[in-house]
Amino acid sequence: MNYGIIGYILGWVLTIESLFMFLPCIIAAIYREETGWTFLTVAVIGLLAGFVITRRKPKNTVFFTREGFVIVSLSWIVMSLVGAIPFVLNGDIPNFTNALFETISGFTTTGASILADVEALSKCSLFWRSFTHWIGGMGVLVFLLAILPMTGGHNMHLMRAESTGPAVGKLVPKVKETAKILYMIYFCMTVVQIVLLLIAGMPWFDAVTTAVGTAGTGGFGIKADSMAGYSPAIQWIVTIFMILFGVNFNMYYLLLGKNKLNAFKLEEVRWYFVVILVSTGIITANIASTYSNLSDAVRDAAFQVGSIITTTGFATTDFVIWPMASQVILVILMFLGACAGSTGGGVKISRIVIMLKAVKQEVMYLLHPKSVKMIKMDDKALDKSVVRNVTVFLATYVLIYIVSLILVSFDNFDFATTFTGVMATLNNIGPGLGAVGPTGNFDGFSDLSKYVLMFDMLAGRLELYPMLLLLTPAVWKKN
Amino acid sequence: MNYGIIGYILGWVLTIESLFMFLPCIIAAIYREETGWTFLTVAVIGLLAGFVITRRKPKNTVFFTREGFVIVSLSWIVMSLVGAIPFVLNGDIPNFTNALFETISGFTTTGASILADVEALSKCSLFWRSFTHWIGGMGVLVFLLAILPMTGGHNMHLMRAESTGPAVGKLVPKVKETAKILYMIYFCMTVVQIVLLLIAGMPWFDAVTTAVGTAGTGGFGIKADSMAGYSPAIQWIVTIFMILFGVNFNMYYLLLGKNKLNAFKLEEVRWYFVVILVSTGIITANIASTYSNLSDAVRDAAFQVGSIITTTGFATTDFVIWPMASQVILVILMFLGACAGSTGGGVKISRIVIMLKAVKQEVMYLLHPKSVKMIKMDDKALDKSVVRNVTVFLATYVLIYIVSLILVSFDNFDFATTFTGVMATLNNIGPGLGAVGPTGNFDGFSDLSKYVLMFDMLAGRLELYPMLLLLTPAVWKKN
Repeated sequence: MNYGIIGYILGWVLTIESLFMFLPCIIAAIYREETGWTFLTVAVIGLLAGFVITRRKPKNTVFFTREGFVIVSLSWIVMSLVGAIPFVLNGDIPNFTNALFETISGFTTTGASILADVEALSKCSLFWRSFTHWIGGMGVLVFLLAILPMTGGHNMHLMRAESTGPAVGKLVPKVKETAKILYMIYFCMTVVQIVLLLIAGMPWFDAVTTAVGTAGTGGFGIKADSMAGYSPAIQWIVTIFMILFGVNFNMYYLLLGKNKLNAFKLEEVRWYFVVILVSTGIITANIASTYSNLSDAVRDAAFQVGSIITTTGFATTDFVIWPMASQVILVILMFLGACAGSTGGGVKISRIVIMLKAVKQEVMYLLHPKSVKMIKMDDKALDKSVVRNVTVFLATYVLIYIVSLILVSFDNFDFATTFTGVMATLNNIGPGLGAVGPTGNFDGFSDLSKYVLMFDMLAGRLELYPMLLLLTPAVWKKN
Repeated sequence: MNYGIIGYILGWVLTIESLFMFLPCIIAAIYREETGWTFLTVAVIGLLAGFVITRRKPKNTVFFTREGFVIVSLSWIVMSLVGAIPFVLNGDIPNFTNALFETISGFTTTGASILADVEALSKCSLFWRSFTHWIGGMGVLVFLLAILPMTGGHNMHLMRAESTGPAVGKLVPKVKETAKILYMIYFCMTVVQIVLLLIAGMPWFDAVTTAVGTAGTGGFGIKADSMAGYSPAIQWIVTIFMILFGVNFNMYYLLLGKNKLNAFKLEEVRWYFVVILVSTGIITANIASTYSNLSDAVRDAAFQVGSIITTTGFATTDFVIWPMASQVILVILMFLGACAGSTGGGVKISRIVIMLKAVKQEVMYLLHPKSVKMIKMDDKALDKSVVRNVTVFLATYVLIYIVSLILVSFDNFDFATTFTGVMATLNNIGPGLGAVGPTGNFDGFSDLSKYVLMFDMLAGRLELYPMLLLLTPAVWKKN
């Protein structure tokens, strides 16, 4: 284990986070909020600490998958611990466990909140809370890779551990360039959304926080009723951008290149849109009778489908009161999740598609044992190890889900709350059903359950293995 | 597709079922029930039809996996259709859909009932209902293989399609002998249970129906309160035999052989007992405060754990009123299921153990990419195809579960009823939570949902693929 490089990169993560923390200070200055000092204090101390740590560059900069995974999981834990401090100091979330829950929920783009009254928060805290989604969405290490003068093939281990999906494709040969392109697309799309929201008449503070929350597919709202109070135009803009940020970013890169048509051939993206359209259709039909006009029903259905499949978690209605069929479809969308290579969570559409193909292959194998075809994706034969990874991922996912479920069930909530509470955190969605539905919150859980759910949020965002590795004693042994 | 052999074997299945149907006639004669005539009529007609069909032995008796799977799924459907007729004719279950649901639930050893008042049934119907569990538990085709003068390696395809678990081990080189040994063990254990129940003071009719329901891990009771009204001694006997019938029958075969000690080395069986002990312990601790003495709490916990993990479905208490942690553990046990090679349903402990090992292997792979060990079970390295089968099985299982869930959700039951209703049928358990808990029944579902759940019961018992193949157009094409 190369502890030197781990410390070095953690130092850089601290530095970057501290720099980002000057943004809420600006918000505090604009609204003349005293609470802003806490952000400034933490930012300055963090910056100094980061500066000291990163002065000593380690001699040995070579590292492998193992270190990559450990760096990523530790980075996210350090980031969350530091990010929670201002909430505690300025009294917006005085309880440390709650502040940490809220911060992890932010960075992991979950959006599950322990706050009963979000509107009571100061503006700078509200901004920081939403902005953690933006940092976490594309990932802080991907950001580091884009700006740091680090070279060498081992950087790919960091990218792989933080990116989502079964196989990480570099857009261009160099990791650094790939990271830069990803962040450029991410940044531009966020700006476009802010502009459109402003044009639609949203106040600028609301527009910025909503856009960063959408970009990271996070879902922290700044209003008690989430997005329900905004105009239909604003709701549609948010719907469309939630869905766009759930698309595999490879598509946007292809759109920028020469062969633009290839962008529309990505199998995962096609399936993603089919699932969204079909789900919206079924839910609209299912809820239409309770609405006075169809356009409201379509808008609510599309918004909730977009919000849940991308694991964002904004809401325009309390879907807990919808008929069971609509709720079941939403729960299934929670499980599916968005595209690989997007900012969304969940199992990911590409994994589901590969699994479906594996099932089909199995049935065909029973029919014609001697003429079984390779599993293909985007017209390329998939390596057997990818298929194995995907099915083992599902098994790991089920395992973590089951263990979390048992631990959380001792809080004795009802069936829907217990099952969807774990699902909503492990899949980085935010709201579930029952007591943790769109109008509820997670404060009712015990501290033990909160820590279990925090682990699940991190495990979900980092796709299970980095967090599992932290719990594996063999990782900490010397080479 | 060898249609000749399919018809031929279906003819034999009909014959065997008709012969078994003389048993309820004997019960009817003892209790002088008029309803017995319907069983006699169906039995005689079935016997004649079977006789005619089986006269023409097909010239080509060679068949492959494909035919094996189709024969098995069609056999179970034919068996269920014929087995349901007496219930409709004698008026005990006048609605055909309900009668079919009850019969499929019987043969698949599910034990989910549409009856609100089971005690209103005639004795011969009650007996037939429970006896279908016994036929379905070990499988009618395994029975056929034991008695029919069929030879050739292709018989293994039938055995494989009807037996449970990821890999079918023949006990002895010949399929016919293996089938005989299995049925001998099965028969003897059933008789021992009947004798013990009689000694414990159970009336003989109750003892016989309870024992055949336990042996098949079915769970149809003959009392409205299932097993709650019987003495503690009887409840303990049933608990122990449920658990024994959930054990891999390989263990009993090993116990009969020279190296008896090997029986206790089977990894799956060890895990099975560990899970039972741990679950019983946790649930006892969780419910103890609501009981006046500990022995009642232990007995209820052990009974329910044994009943659910073996997917039997008898109950001594209404566990829907237990604290959520106990309910969650029961739901997880529903998913786990019993041992491979037993009469129980669910995913099976061996598959779960293999999945856990695959997850561990994946984590080790991340740590030491170059020194990954093979997955072993019972000290033997597992073929990669077995590991793939297990993980793809889980994916198939999730897929069928999701599709069923969507279809059933339109009945607009609550969350617990919808989710556990599908789970209780797909895993061949019987009762779920909510409206389909131990004191409820499945009659409230729509006809569409009932047919979906019937499909799930058959898919669960036959381990998914035989039923999926029926829905695959390519199966029905000529070679």
